[in-house]
Amino acid sequence: MAQDNGYQQRIRASFAKQGLMRTLGASLEHISPGVVEIAMRPNGAISQQHGFTHAGAVSAIADSAAGYAALSLMPHGTGVLTAEFKINFVAPAAGDRIIARGRVVKAGRTLTVAQTEVFAESGGEEKLIALLIATIMTVADRAGVSD
Amino acid sequence: MAQDNGYQQRIRASFAKQGLMRTLGASLEHISPGVVEIAMRPNGAISQQHGFTHAGAVSAIADSAAGYAALSLMPHGTGVLTAEFKINFVAPAAGDRIIARGRVVKAGRTLTVAQTEVFAESGGEEKLIALLIATIMTVADRAGVSD
Amino acid sequence: MAQDNGYQQRIRASFAKQGLMRTLGASLEHISPGVVEIAMRPNGAISQQHGFTHAGAVSAIADSAAGYAALSLMPHGTGVLTAEFKINFVAPAAGDRIIARGRVVKAGRTLTVAQTEVFAESGGEEKLIALLIATIMTVADRAGVSD
Amino acid sequence: MAQDNGYQQRIRASFAKQGLMRTLGASLEHISPGVVEIAMRPNGAISQQHGFTHAGAVSAIADSAAGYAALSLMPHGTGVLTAEFKINFVAPAAGDRIIARGRVVKAGRTLTVAQTEVFAESGGEEKLIALLIATIMTVADRAGVSD
Repeated sequence: MAQDNGYQQRIRASFAKQGLMRTLGASLEHISPGVVEIAMRPNGAISQQHGFTHAGAVSAIADSAAGYAALSLMPHGTGVLTAEFKINFVAPAAGDRIIARGRVVKAGRTLTVAQTEVFAESGGEEKLIALLIATIMTVADRAGVSD
Repeated sequence: MAQDNGYQQRIRASFAKQGLMRTLGASLEHISPGVVEIAMRPNGAISQQHGFTHAGAVSAIADSAAGYAALSLMPHGTGVLTAEFKINFVAPAAGDRIIARGRVVKAGRTLTVAQTEVFAESGGEEKLIALLIATIMTVADRAGVSD
Repeated sequence: MAQDNGYQQRIRASFAKQGLMRTLGASLEHISPGVVEIAMRPNGAISQQHGFTHAGAVSAIADSAAGYAALSLMPHGTGVLTAEFKINFVAPAAGDRIIARGRVVKAGRTLTVAQTEVFAESGGEEKLIALLIATIMTVADRAGVSD
Repeated sequence: MAQDNGYQQRIRASFAKQGLMRTLGASLEHISPGVVEIAMRPNGAISQQHGFTHAGAVSAIADSAAGYAALSLMPHGTGVLTAEFKINFVAPAAGDRIIARGRVVKAGRTLTVAQTEVFAESGGEEKLIALLIATIMTVADRAGVSD
């Protein structure tokens, strides 16, 4: 359950400040308590050498989705930092859209564990392409960190 | 030891095809057998919400450095795919340059393990900001995958 | 879907050869295609310094559950090796039983990704205590490795 | 640098309370600030199905080595909990001894990152068999947790 009534607005404002998301052409598709979805469209600007979307671009939206899923459950005034993540790539990142769906597995006072499933959508069908697990730290006492 | 005399040229050509590296403003700084270095300059286009370089951008160059370190030891005609990686972020990604130094920990026939240390350089001094471990698969029999 | 009709018998025979499972007092509780469950009872022989079950013991049954979930989908004559795993600990491992439920996320020819959720059961109630993701390699051509 | 003069004694006392280390036949071989070494001898009680030492047993001593390396740098009265770890297995765990050498990569107030290299010693020669990275949480305010 969200502790901050303005969590959706806070996440939208924070996302808008992430220059990398704009650079990747990523958009915030869904926010609810403990769940955030971010998507982007494969194109040459985010590719790797075989023409697929780069693992780093997939990781970037998957990490942001996990971080904002965590932030959606946090009290007003706190922020999030990714302490670490691990991501498995199980199929090539190709298709019409790449969709990262993050959800909180366990919300703790200091650490939150979130998991993001990443899908490639092609012709209306979705296929799992990556799985990320992140450990996210609540930051409560650092100047300027409130998202 | 490199098995392909043209490994440097192969890595440079492959890097040039990674649209994401161009988008991030990343450059290939060093290639030797089992070791590859990639760098980029922090700027608003690759930032997260607190103004630091986004974990996803750091991961992208760290993953590419690990993958190319692995590729530097592979026979001609084979390519690499990242099966998975894990990255720990130990300090904010801020400074004049972000430098990812990948090196092979263990080169196997099917799987190679590589580790990338990521440093932030500020005023000529380097500080460790992230540590990535990747499992990279050798791809030998797939059409069009030779880097 | 299982490719080897004798997969249950193969997994039971293999589990019986794992000396560590016997040492930990672990038992095989369930096998179906792509899903394996292993349990053990907390006790002083598998504890860490605060009296909880040691992260290493939790990891051991979680890794075996993931590996056998992968093996359940493999052809006769092939074996499995864990290439790597990552595990997050989200609550203390304490209770009447520790139950590791492994399931295959993506079965590939060379690599299979499996995930294990570990629960602590106390008074009939289960609580998530850990989450493991493993990359498991199919071994098809190595003498003596058929499980 | 150690903040607690009695760190060696504290680690020895804590290790002695880890029932699992005794069960695995593991011994504490070295303690210095930020560095801890734990070893064990392969035998049937800690094996997996192919006769090698089980990944779970390797993980257990590697995790303890990382945790105690972290604890060696912490103030008196604080304890450690492993938040998560990732381990890559790069060669079979076989030989006369398995030696886990943990060292702190970055010591933070709340989180410490430590890395353990695991070697198999055979006939006096050492070979890298696994690499673990752990995120360890400092616990300062929990009753009974001081190691």
